[in-house]
Amino acid sequence: MDLDALDTPFVVVDRVVLERNLAASAERARARGVAWRPHAKTHKSLAIGRRQLHHGAVGLTLATVGEAEIFAAAGFDDLFLAYPIWAAGPRADRLRTLAGTIALRVGLDSVAGADQLADALRGAPVEVVVEVDSGHHRTGGDPRRAGEVAAHAVSRGLDVVGVFTFPGHAYAPGAREGAAADEARAPDLAAHALLAVGIEPRVRSGGTTPTENLPVLGENGFPATETRPGVSSFGDAQQVELGAIDFADCALAIVATVVHSRDGEAVLDAGSKVLGTDRAAWATGHGRLPDRPAARIVTLSEHHATVVCGDGPVPAVGSRVRVVPNHVCTSVNLVDRLVVVQDDEVVDTWVVDARGANS
Amino acid sequence: MDLDALDTPFVVVDRVVLERNLAASAERARARGVAWRPHAKTHKSLAIGRRQLHHGAVGLTLATVGEAEIFAAAGFDDLFLAYPIWAAGPRADRLRTLAGTIALRVGLDSVAGADQLADALRGAPVEVVVEVDSGHHRTGGDPRRAGEVAAHAVSRGLDVVGVFTFPGHAYAPGAREGAAADEARAPDLAAHALLAVGIEPRVRSGGTTPTENLPVLGENGFPATETRPGVSSFGDAQQVELGAIDFADCALAIVATVVHSRDGEAVLDAGSKVLGTDRAAWATGHGRLPDRPAARIVTLSEHHATVVCGDGPVPAVGSRVRVVPNHVCTSVNLVDRLVVVQDDEVVDTWVVDARGANS
Repeated sequence: MDLDALDTPFVVVDRVVLERNLAASAERARARGVAWRPHAKTHKSLAIGRRQLHHGAVGLTLATVGEAEIFAAAGFDDLFLAYPIWAAGPRADRLRTLAGTIALRVGLDSVAGADQLADALRGAPVEVVVEVDSGHHRTGGDPRRAGEVAAHAVSRGLDVVGVFTFPGHAYAPGAREGAAADEARAPDLAAHALLAVGIEPRVRSGGTTPTENLPVLGENGFPATETRPGVSSFGDAQQVELGAIDFADCALAIVATVVHSRDGEAVLDAGSKVLGTDRAAWATGHGRLPDRPAARIVTLSEHHATVVCGDGPVPAVGSRVRVVPNHVCTSVNLVDRLVVVQDDEVVDTWVVDARGANS
Repeated sequence: MDLDALDTPFVVVDRVVLERNLAASAERARARGVAWRPHAKTHKSLAIGRRQLHHGAVGLTLATVGEAEIFAAAGFDDLFLAYPIWAAGPRADRLRTLAGTIALRVGLDSVAGADQLADALRGAPVEVVVEVDSGHHRTGGDPRRAGEVAAHAVSRGLDVVGVFTFPGHAYAPGAREGAAADEARAPDLAAHALLAVGIEPRVRSGGTTPTENLPVLGENGFPATETRPGVSSFGDAQQVELGAIDFADCALAIVATVVHSRDGEAVLDAGSKVLGTDRAAWATGHGRLPDRPAARIVTLSEHHATVVCGDGPVPAVGSRVRVVPNHVCTSVNLVDRLVVVQDDEVVDTWVVDARGANS
């Protein structure tokens, strides 16, 4: 089938580029000597998760119990919820059920969270890792105080196996090297803090796409054991604008139709409901057109993207263009299906199985 | 059922507030003497669409053929696609099928679009309205030149019945009155242009939530005949910050759990994947907490919202808060279901039937 047989907007994934990206991400982990546990929140697709295992992933990372349930039901048997899960209400029972089914690891960053988790699990086997803040200042506490949470968790019968961090401050121009150093330093300090309370910090997990290939060893001798890149499976316009990849490395794009054309500008039928609205302060627009590098999406509404065409010709009404979204994870979460292409021929359709599984 | 039996994050709709909002929006249209054709892209829900008809809507407005197919299949028989639809490929056949099933009206803003639409419809009955730009500069052409597109459409056998505009520039502080004047002026000019080429401009459709209650008469004597507010059914944080409504008027909120708490700040389990990322330049954050007016959501990632609590106490880990999203339309599009509450009791669940129907 040919792409013209599909109504726009829709999301295409280039199978060859995707496979190349997965192999490269796996190879970067191997070269650093760390386990590759990619974050599946980026694709939320069982089909792509399976390709990641094929390329050597030790398991997958996810953000919510709902996502883990969907992957577990499909046979994924080693999952890490890299999130300080609050295990109350129905979620407590759901976590306990998951724990009885697969090898499950969850995050924790507070004494109260440890109590809640211990109550929820009632002895069901779960590996616990303590989240620490490496500079992104989102969740996770001071790495030097990770021992407090860890010791309390152990006192409640939980199996604490290590620490993790998310150096999200790497997603900014010029921030990559510093964030990579932070990413190494925080788990290293935290591992030391765990050891000080008698807990073996076997797992030291970090990782983002920007820091994926930047190993830095901590001073206490606890290097990372695991990396959790998400975006690198697809690539996106943010990564292009950060200089990390080229458009040729972007495996995913939205195909849109020009619905309005005027002097210097075109309006596409792909709006925020398929591109997503994520836009960093340093981003030059709301996504990029790989075939028109000078073009910028200056305005986005729900079903319209206004493109200033720059030095190129304005595309005619009815013509189609490809848009690489700024942040691919939020774009994928807006659609039910990914159209898989090779040489512009449709070769498969993959379901976004865990779309919307927010809880 | 009580809300604690549901895992966060989830979306609640207060039935009493919703009904009050729908009745008020209908009444504003009646007071202006115009037909009320609310935009269902806001809720994408058949249940709410039916309540709008109950309150006197003449029909619904939608943005995509996919949305219209879903509403038509459920018995909605008068729909307006307020969008310059490009009727090529499978969409041509889908439009023709719809046209044979319900009273369908579609937008048009170019000669090429008119040709495409005429080819697609092959005589199937569709009312055509010409979109004109009233100052938002998205789609729609110069109102004074609306006659060109209209005359061409008629020459191709299309049934042109009027004009429409979307004064989206009303969504900014202090812009409401000016945009309302533009909203009146542009269709008035365009109606005059249609009459000049012998076409009766029976339909003059406009409307946004900010301009819903601001009638302004155009100089040519063609007042609006119809209004298409969307957001006003739910209300959202943008409308609160624009001063148009109070928190008590917001029918929809996201219930979230505090997963991390520190000095002055809390982190919620509701991120961009349920709140949406829309944030106008003048917005004070990524949504608002109605029970904590001083709090601001300063950072949003996919599954985390970081709240600076302002002068209020920091909520404890595990406690629940409500968040009113900045732009309710994009938030609804992220979930499959709306939990309907009355006095904090769950009384129903409504499906977001047309979620993701982007094409």
